[in-house]
Amino acid sequence: MKDLEGRKRVVIEHVSPQIGSGRFPVKRAIGEKIIVSADVYGDGHDEVRAVLLYRPLKDQQWIETPMNFLGNDHWEAAFMPETPGMYEFTITGWVDHFLTWKKGLQKKYDAGQDVKVELMIGAQLMEDALSRASGEDAWRLQDWVEKFKDPQEALPLVTLALSPEVAGIMYIHGDRSQAGQYNRVLVVEVERKKALFSSWYEFFPRSTSREPGRHGTFKDSEQILPRVAEMGFDVVYLPPIHPIGRSFRKGRNNSVTSQPGEPGSPWAIGAAEGGHKAINPDLGTMEDFVAFVRHANELNIEIAIDLALQCAPDHPYVKDHPQWFKWRPDGTVQYAENPPKKYQDVLPINFETEDWQNLWVELKSIIDFWIDKGVTIFRVDNPHTKPFAFWEWAIREVRSVHPEIIFLSEAFTRPRIMERLAKIGFNQSYTYFTWRNTQFELIQYLTELTKTEVREYFRPNFWPNTPDILPEMLQHGGEPAFITRVVMAGTLSSNYGLYGPVYEFGINTPVAPGKEEYLDSEKYEIKHWDWDRQTKIRQVITRLNQIRQENPALQTTWNIQFGETDNQQLLCYAKVDESGDNRMLMVINLDPHHVQAGWIKVPIQFLRIPAGNAYVVNDLLSGNRYNWHHEWNYVELHPGNIPVHIFRVE
Amino acid sequence: MKDLEGRKRVVIEHVSPQIGSGRFPVKRAIGEKIIVSADVYGDGHDEVRAVLLYRPLKDQQWIETPMNFLGNDHWEAAFMPETPGMYEFTITGWVDHFLTWKKGLQKKYDAGQDVKVELMIGAQLMEDALSRASGEDAWRLQDWVEKFKDPQEALPLVTLALSPEVAGIMYIHGDRSQAGQYNRVLVVEVERKKALFSSWYEFFPRSTSREPGRHGTFKDSEQILPRVAEMGFDVVYLPPIHPIGRSFRKGRNNSVTSQPGEPGSPWAIGAAEGGHKAINPDLGTMEDFVAFVRHANELNIEIAIDLALQCAPDHPYVKDHPQWFKWRPDGTVQYAENPPKKYQDVLPINFETEDWQNLWVELKSIIDFWIDKGVTIFRVDNPHTKPFAFWEWAIREVRSVHPEIIFLSEAFTRPRIMERLAKIGFNQSYTYFTWRNTQFELIQYLTELTKTEVREYFRPNFWPNTPDILPEMLQHGGEPAFITRVVMAGTLSSNYGLYGPVYEFGINTPVAPGKEEYLDSEKYEIKHWDWDRQTKIRQVITRLNQIRQENPALQTTWNIQFGETDNQQLLCYAKVDESGDNRMLMVINLDPHHVQAGWIKVPIQFLRIPAGNAYVVNDLLSGNRYNWHHEWNYVELHPGNIPVHIFRVE
Repeated sequence: MKDLEGRKRVVIEHVSPQIGSGRFPVKRAIGEKIIVSADVYGDGHDEVRAVLLYRPLKDQQWIETPMNFLGNDHWEAAFMPETPGMYEFTITGWVDHFLTWKKGLQKKYDAGQDVKVELMIGAQLMEDALSRASGEDAWRLQDWVEKFKDPQEALPLVTLALSPEVAGIMYIHGDRSQAGQYNRVLVVEVERKKALFSSWYEFFPRSTSREPGRHGTFKDSEQILPRVAEMGFDVVYLPPIHPIGRSFRKGRNNSVTSQPGEPGSPWAIGAAEGGHKAINPDLGTMEDFVAFVRHANELNIEIAIDLALQCAPDHPYVKDHPQWFKWRPDGTVQYAENPPKKYQDVLPINFETEDWQNLWVELKSIIDFWIDKGVTIFRVDNPHTKPFAFWEWAIREVRSVHPEIIFLSEAFTRPRIMERLAKIGFNQSYTYFTWRNTQFELIQYLTELTKTEVREYFRPNFWPNTPDILPEMLQHGGEPAFITRVVMAGTLSSNYGLYGPVYEFGINTPVAPGKEEYLDSEKYEIKHWDWDRQTKIRQVITRLNQIRQENPALQTTWNIQFGETDNQQLLCYAKVDESGDNRMLMVINLDPHHVQAGWIKVPIQFLRIPAGNAYVVNDLLSGNRYNWHHEWNYVELHPGNIPVHIFRVE
Repeated sequence: MKDLEGRKRVVIEHVSPQIGSGRFPVKRAIGEKIIVSADVYGDGHDEVRAVLLYRPLKDQQWIETPMNFLGNDHWEAAFMPETPGMYEFTITGWVDHFLTWKKGLQKKYDAGQDVKVELMIGAQLMEDALSRASGEDAWRLQDWVEKFKDPQEALPLVTLALSPEVAGIMYIHGDRSQAGQYNRVLVVEVERKKALFSSWYEFFPRSTSREPGRHGTFKDSEQILPRVAEMGFDVVYLPPIHPIGRSFRKGRNNSVTSQPGEPGSPWAIGAAEGGHKAINPDLGTMEDFVAFVRHANELNIEIAIDLALQCAPDHPYVKDHPQWFKWRPDGTVQYAENPPKKYQDVLPINFETEDWQNLWVELKSIIDFWIDKGVTIFRVDNPHTKPFAFWEWAIREVRSVHPEIIFLSEAFTRPRIMERLAKIGFNQSYTYFTWRNTQFELIQYLTELTKTEVREYFRPNFWPNTPDILPEMLQHGGEPAFITRVVMAGTLSSNYGLYGPVYEFGINTPVAPGKEEYLDSEKYEIKHWDWDRQTKIRQVITRLNQIRQENPALQTTWNIQFGETDNQQLLCYAKVDESGDNRMLMVINLDPHHVQAGWIKVPIQFLRIPAGNAYVVNDLLSGNRYNWHHEWNYVELHPGNIPVHIFRVE
């Protein structure tokens, strides 16, 4: 009984947001409010107070914000940090006897009862507050105590008791000795805005040479940057830039033997020239790379590199750290496999090695190495095939020194695994968007991402294609599909990316019918692209990125509301920014083959359009403006034209 | 890094059932399965195992049950304790390299690959298991190691590797050194069956005299017990039986002054004759009470008394422990109030007293006192006006010595408060059923109680009336409403109760129009009931209790499924017991004034009736049997007759 706090009468529970009972930090970006809610109540009918406490992690002093009562014992308050970092928050609550007394006094006085004794009780409460006050407040409390102690006329004292002045001082010096604190301190990680709003362009630097057949270099790649910047992208992501293994090197179209001169897959990392901290000599030198990064930064582009923790059989690690690999009874090293398939050009790292601590330190040093070269973003290849504990440790360690670093999880695997990677620290995540095509699928998936607990930690990055994935919709849908898929990626999600040249040029031939691999994939060969070529897709992308820059509603993923349609081939959704001033409405023709028309129900309440009011929707792609008067409006979208509307509501 | 367990690759999360991150025990009754589910997975593609561990609280040895994989990384297992008490459970999981190897071996062999090296890897795994084996298992492992080490012919070894014999031994001696355990041990409280299945009859012992005008006694009340037993009730609940205060005693119909000879409200506890541990002398002696309890027990009836922790101004506590009350500046003691209303006959206890520890000990001693007299159930009056911490402590302390004691929470207050009282230990709870009348309301409320987290800790007890509540539906609906409300109470919820004589006799006059108080309420006067009177309501109640006894499906609240109807005045629901053998189907006419007919959709899948099969529904109230062939069937219910069906599906 001694360890019980028997007089703490307030319960605080159901505190939100939190993930896994506070096991993981909640994620927010600069500019996003952290809205904290909880159930706070006591026994009986006494009045209760609830206060949100927050502070930068490890600070001494809590910052206090009173919570607002929303009804049904539910309370809410918000805070919005101005600098990135880890913040912690909790809630405290207490029974406020002064407030209870004040409400009772008013009711009794209004009912015409004698309130003399009530006023004397007020004097006792003020005397109690006086014991905690000093200075000016103490003088005033002393004065009030005298007045209430021996009450003469009721009305002036009741009026005084109900005054904001008394309320303020009694709140400040109220008795919190029996306040209860929520039994957890929760953490929120506030990141720079890029974690939530970014536009990625992926290209292979080896395909940037202007001369057909010559291996592209970083110097060549520098020439590509201005056009990428002009298209409005702010992240350039490069597949691995390291020396490529020679044993079991893959040839064109993933053939198991390569011809002399074939470059191999960049994901077969490591050769005599070095491993994960070396540059493929065909691309240039480390200095070239650093110059490339600097040049990109001057164009407001950040460089993301690929972090693929696997080794070609010729990787220096294999000789230097044989204990980091599995060895077979015949003395050979274990290659990757998915029985009966074998991937002999790639060795998985054996994270179960007894030498795991040295392994982890070395792998993390790869990240630090490239940060030192100017890399700020890592697109992590297959993170789900390495232990969660490793990523949690590595990301935390890196970000504790470099909080600006962003890790994108390339995992298209089982939902619980993708979610876990986000929980343990990945700042952005690949998603199933790539395969969600119907209205039902898209609404269901976006609802899961934005309206469930997933929203607290999983920041989607929508990719309509990658070097590994040429989705069926692009294969069959042609240019209209390329346009609708990229517009959806960039308006449904504030983070999105493209495997760029292939997308701009509408390349969509699979290696075989029913496969999602590209024919003559750039993964196994050098391409020669006509970088000067203008396409309609490129124009739409360029305009899309401008629109994203100019409209804050598209710089967040969470504030989405779908609208009904009477035609399932139309997708309609609205987005609003934090201020409510920027209001966007998108309509997509999901059918790349036919004109689709029908009625859409504009979510006018969400868009803060008063019912019955006229409003203008301005199509930022076509420049057309429409005067609408009702919730339901008619739209018609032609695949041959631009099969989407990106309206700003004005 | 040293405190990290870097090689534990398995994640265990989303473990269910749990309440408030394991802060409170989950509730179950004997005969109820505890179905535990969780997401368990590792990184990569290795095979994972998950095992449920459980044991009686404080036991040394865990009992292990392998969990079944349900898909999407979700696993499930169950246990069912045979004795009441606290049990704890958790989950462990690990990567099973042997299982991974076995699956790969089969695929490679089936694909015609050379599996020689694979078989040698198998030998290594078996050798590893051998290091943990002894006796017979060790001999067999030794034998297999020899065979696999130097594999000759593949087929017999592959066959052996895939055999159940090898699977069993490799499971037993598998490597669990890197197994991960869920980070919480969860607790479930398993209670005696009565906690889940009970039928309560409330009467005032002072109204049991056969002579009009004479104060009834426990001896008189003994005479009532056989008819209560005959009606099928197994709990008799008595309003407070203690001396009644004299100062500010309430008169008839809650009048603020009483006339000489008026008995007062039993909830104004305490007078010169004693307080919460004394018997009102008008009811008899302590010996009379103990004899009454014994007599009830012989009829398989348990006695529930009222625990109302409040005092009349003449209660001995007021003089002996003035520090347990609040005193006003004018020297008077603080009475209960809800401004501007005053309840001067009742003093609330001041739980904020600095002497709270002695107060708690004394209040708990009241419970112990009555347990000693044979009381096994406490109906706690207004528990929400006393601190949650007190109840949590008191109930835990009492039940740690007397786990059979049941506490019913009489709280019709805010949802979070009612839920909290259940979480902290109340075994049964009053509910909002009393005011849920329409099909929509009833389905919504039952869904909340049975299909959400609430199901894990809140055990409803449905009361169609109480001495405090004469619901409008009974006022206006008359006999048909009395019948449908009690049948719903007793078939929707396995715990139900009645304020008995008033219900049997269909008394339904309110003190004033629009009020839910009874006119001439028994709370303030002695009644003279004709206990021999037979009514149709009494007959239905008697039959209802027989049906509840004979049909296990009605002895639990959780297994409910509503059926569609084409008429919103009809309510249709089915219940099935744990074995699935006992299947019940209820249809209620919610309209007490008119015949209601329509089509109901029998939930045949839930009732395990194969689609297309004929089935018989046997109305256990009327004895009528119907042959039904389809999901949709026609019913017609007359308020003048019996406006409900209680079908057993045969």
